Amino acid sequence: MTLAMLVNGETSQLIAADDRGFQYGDGLFETALLVGGSVRFLDDHLERLFTGCDRLGITPPEEQTLRSEIAQVTAGAERGVLKVIVTRGSGGRGYRPSHVMSSTRVVALHPLNPAPKGSLRLRWCDIRLGRNARLAGIKHLNRLEQVLAQSEWREGEADEGLMLDTEGEVVCATSANVFAVRDGALITPDLRFCGVHGVMRAQVLKAAGKLRLAVSEEPLWPHDIETANEVFITNAVRGIRSVASLDSLQWSETSVATRLANALSLSDT
Amino acid sequence: MTLAMLVNGETSQLIAADDRGFQYGDGLFETALLVGGSVRFLDDHLERLFTGCDRLGITPPEEQTLRSEIAQVTAGAERGVLKVIVTRGSGGRGYRPSHVMSSTRVVALHPLNPAPKGSLRLRWCDIRLGRNARLAGIKHLNRLEQVLAQSEWREGEADEGLMLDTEGEVVCATSANVFAVRDGALITPDLRFCGVHGVMRAQVLKAAGKLRLAVSEEPLWPHDIETANEVFITNAVRGIRSVASLDSLQWSETSVATRLANALSLSDT
Repeated sequence: MTLAMLVNGETSQLIAADDRGFQYGDGLFETALLVGGSVRFLDDHLERLFTGCDRLGITPPEEQTLRSEIAQVTAGAERGVLKVIVTRGSGGRGYRPSHVMSSTRVVALHPLNPAPKGSLRLRWCDIRLGRNARLAGIKHLNRLEQVLAQSEWREGEADEGLMLDTEGEVVCATSANVFAVRDGALITPDLRFCGVHGVMRAQVLKAAGKLRLAVSEEPLWPHDIETANEVFITNAVRGIRSVASLDSLQWSETSVATRLANALSLSDT
Repeated sequence: MTLAMLVNGETSQLIAADDRGFQYGDGLFETALLVGGSVRFLDDHLERLFTGCDRLGITPPEEQTLRSEIAQVTAGAERGVLKVIVTRGSGGRGYRPSHVMSSTRVVALHPLNPAPKGSLRLRWCDIRLGRNARLAGIKHLNRLEQVLAQSEWREGEADEGLMLDTEGEVVCATSANVFAVRDGALITPDLRFCGVHGVMRAQVLKAAGKLRLAVSEEPLWPHDIETANEVFITNAVRGIRSVASLDSLQWSETSVATRLANALSLSDT
């Protein structure tokens, strides 16, 4: 369900079939939380979006235009999920981008679905993430791996799945970043080959510094997760969520996640 | 430019913005040659499309419906490029596919643009292909790597680019498969980790058998291409095209490519 949608500034639910987002996944997206009538961490979302445009050589939309369209779709709403898609634009056939394309903007507000309560039940996903440093970190539209990952379990059987890359390194959950706590220090995958630099992940890294928690971004392996004292996942919409189990492993420790959520004044969503 | 387009059977140039093809690249496509008023190797294209649906868990469209829509968009046309896109369908937010989705069909006819004459000038692409056996072989819509590859040179500077995977194996050209000829035998990448099982590639493998040429699908490395007696690339629309150069390397040998094209009665496109 969509509460409001603008396509290139016009009220619409349709895009051109020759849009390169549809033809090739040639674009980027952001998903942010609307809470108390304003978009949480909006500047960070826009910064990642513009970084993505730069990395893919997509003409970025005017920031003022985008901000005004976001204000328009969220006007009068208290809570919801803001989704922004920017693609390279429409036209032509063939992979080669034309140099004169103007990007496509889709700005939409969706309802915020209820989240599972309490700590989460995770599982390992079978499908792996392909490595490609050129696409790592940005939130591009090529998301078949995540779609197939979430198809591995039925709704209700688990809350999220952790994903490895093709070499067996831990990368992320299907739609969240992952942190392990070991002896009071935080470790999280460095995302040099795949995964998305999450907005909430960056906030957690910053807050950890203020709380004087040691933090390390490094290659992580399943063993690092499985032997951690505490595990949590982060996502711009859902915030910081403690992990209760990963397949048959269980954790009861949630204190670091709680301290970070308090430091960031995250309301439970 | 599009000569004719049907979206789910209706004349339209628009798709729903919540289509999963647009949101996540969650779909497949085919690009085929219309020549003499009929679609060349249509059965092979449809077979690959249905295989892709099966691999991704997408509800396949009715074959009769699809064939009738293809007949409708190509009616009265002699030459052109047929493009068929099938996505998981539209609706919802989040990677998890709903089980009740009916797939989206886009069937379009485009003009056939003139191809470069004679043997082709190739280059090595910088961007690599990520490995993921789960997505290998099928023609899915996650094509950012190919888009970025074709952005590496200006139109006219080269005709195609050869791509390596992240481990350095040769996979394909940006929109074609690649064959090397060594001592009269054909070798082509086995595509176990990435790349598309091209319709023309399969035709070449079949024709080579009839011509009693030895054929091997195996891991290929740049050295295998660079030391070959003859190199050619294949694509459903462009057929079999000899390679004249790869960066500073040159080839004049085109005899195997010519024999195969004759055996397949390919008209020059």
